Amino acid sequence: MSEPISVAVAAERLRGVDRIVILTHQYPDGDTLGSGFALCRALQKLGKTARVECADEIPEKYAYLYEGLALPTFEPEFVCAVDVADSKLLGSLESAYANHIALCIDHHGSNTAFADELLLRADYAAAAMLVREVIAALGVEPDKAIAECLYTGIATDTGCFKYSNTTAYTLRMAAELLDCGVNNEMINRTMFDIKTRARVELERQALDSMRFYLNDRCAVMLITNAMIARSGAGENDMEGLAPIPRQIEGVWVGVTLREKKDGSYKVSVRTGNHADAAAICRLLGGGGHLRAAGCTLPGPAEPAVETIVDVVRRTIGG
Amino acid sequence: MSEPISVAVAAERLRGVDRIVILTHQYPDGDTLGSGFALCRALQKLGKTARVECADEIPEKYAYLYEGLALPTFEPEFVCAVDVADSKLLGSLESAYANHIALCIDHHGSNTAFADELLLRADYAAAAMLVREVIAALGVEPDKAIAECLYTGIATDTGCFKYSNTTAYTLRMAAELLDCGVNNEMINRTMFDIKTRARVELERQALDSMRFYLNDRCAVMLITNAMIARSGAGENDMEGLAPIPRQIEGVWVGVTLREKKDGSYKVSVRTGNHADAAAICRLLGGGGHLRAAGCTLPGPAEPAVETIVDVVRRTIGG
Repeated sequence: MSEPISVAVAAERLRGVDRIVILTHQYPDGDTLGSGFALCRALQKLGKTARVECADEIPEKYAYLYEGLALPTFEPEFVCAVDVADSKLLGSLESAYANHIALCIDHHGSNTAFADELLLRADYAAAAMLVREVIAALGVEPDKAIAECLYTGIATDTGCFKYSNTTAYTLRMAAELLDCGVNNEMINRTMFDIKTRARVELERQALDSMRFYLNDRCAVMLITNAMIARSGAGENDMEGLAPIPRQIEGVWVGVTLREKKDGSYKVSVRTGNHADAAAICRLLGGGGHLRAAGCTLPGPAEPAVETIVDVVRRTIGG
Repeated sequence: MSEPISVAVAAERLRGVDRIVILTHQYPDGDTLGSGFALCRALQKLGKTARVECADEIPEKYAYLYEGLALPTFEPEFVCAVDVADSKLLGSLESAYANHIALCIDHHGSNTAFADELLLRADYAAAAMLVREVIAALGVEPDKAIAECLYTGIATDTGCFKYSNTTAYTLRMAAELLDCGVNNEMINRTMFDIKTRARVELERQALDSMRFYLNDRCAVMLITNAMIARSGAGENDMEGLAPIPRQIEGVWVGVTLREKKDGSYKVSVRTGNHADAAAICRLLGGGGHLRAAGCTLPGPAEPAVETIVDVVRRTIGG
């Protein structure tokens, strides 16, 4: 595993090649797609042949990222992954590309260095921030389309500048992108406001399921396969449910149990200053970060809830 | 009604006086409080005597804005209102102060010019942006406490930089405030994430009440006094409910009916590109903006819903 390279070196590599394939991660989000399409547009502006690939279908709401963009077929000379922490996250593209990825541009501290060279800034809120710097080093002025791709990556990975990964530099970079004509109203509305009816229905049922324990310090929300089926929700409707129990005033530990196909439960734990989510989940064979962690418990739901509440009780007392 | 004054003139007025009372609007929000306490802290840094007043109790979540700040009693020489569009919005403070308010610093285009002099920028997302400029003109460097007050005003009035009033200048000003040491993680969490249990319960009931009309182009959500009582929600828990129906994919017109004490309904209409909210509400004796408007209808709920859906049908067809 070699040392990460600099923005200047990454730009030099890209300047020296043609026929570039850009890989995004499976279950694509705003940062991998925004990074990928921004880089592709910039390389095409330099007269290069380039396209973006993704293992999964790109949700309709991201259509503006590739509007008017040609995605030609060609035999690649150079393969570059963006916002991909591990080659496993390439999904079905892994087998075709995993062993000859020349460059990875990423912001995950957990990056497995699967590419020949790695441009990594774990302190950046989004891979799109690094792509912005690479594009600048390539001498490409972002037009409105490139700026909208970059803005999308930054806005989605910061929860619209709400998460703690938002720094003064993040806001200044976003400001520069607005100067390029970004329609932030449209993007913010598309990314943060619009929910499918199925998602709203699932949220309603999930709120119905919420129960409080340990003097209301622990809130547990349950999402069963029956609820998912009744609501008509798909995989894209499931994002952002796990934080809900912890957002309730006075709750120290928020737990979301989501039933998996096999009847077991994926448990997501969210905490504030008062408890260590990773410590709770490690006691049940899982792991994660201080404030966001997970584990898996066998079904059915009731004993699974008892088990996790019991571990939370031992951790926070009460 | 005189011409609005400049930032420099407003700063000159404040520099020339002492014993300054700063007035905020009733049902105080992050912008009026953030503006008021930022200005108060800056004036005290200049050695002046100053305090902030509000007709209503300040919700607990804003406590960090005035932490460590002395709010002395004195006979005012100069009265300045911040983020107050109309003297009526001073609530119970109106009778004491309305006729001798020397200066108003505001960003509402609808400001009634009730003060002797008015510093107005209707293109600014928050009054706190103007207060930031006034503080700079006074020669005060924002410390962390002042910066957190200003950040709070800007973040809350832009929905954490999500609304269309967010410009490159807004983001740059927020970036500068982060440079002053603002704990944006704490502020964003306090302002945007935490909900009371009563609010979550009211939201659950409101989602239960959601009905769709006109080929699902129109969504109607009902909030009755019975639901409010069951949930235990107070006035502070009612913010931000009106946009919910319009956030559902495919909905052109989102309607929220909230029962008032007298049994009539306050109707909030939200629209996108496809319909004019103000036009809909004008047909029912109300008014407002292109995308957000309101009116009042007599109860009970069922005929009120029929009436508004009928007007929406005539407006959008279907």
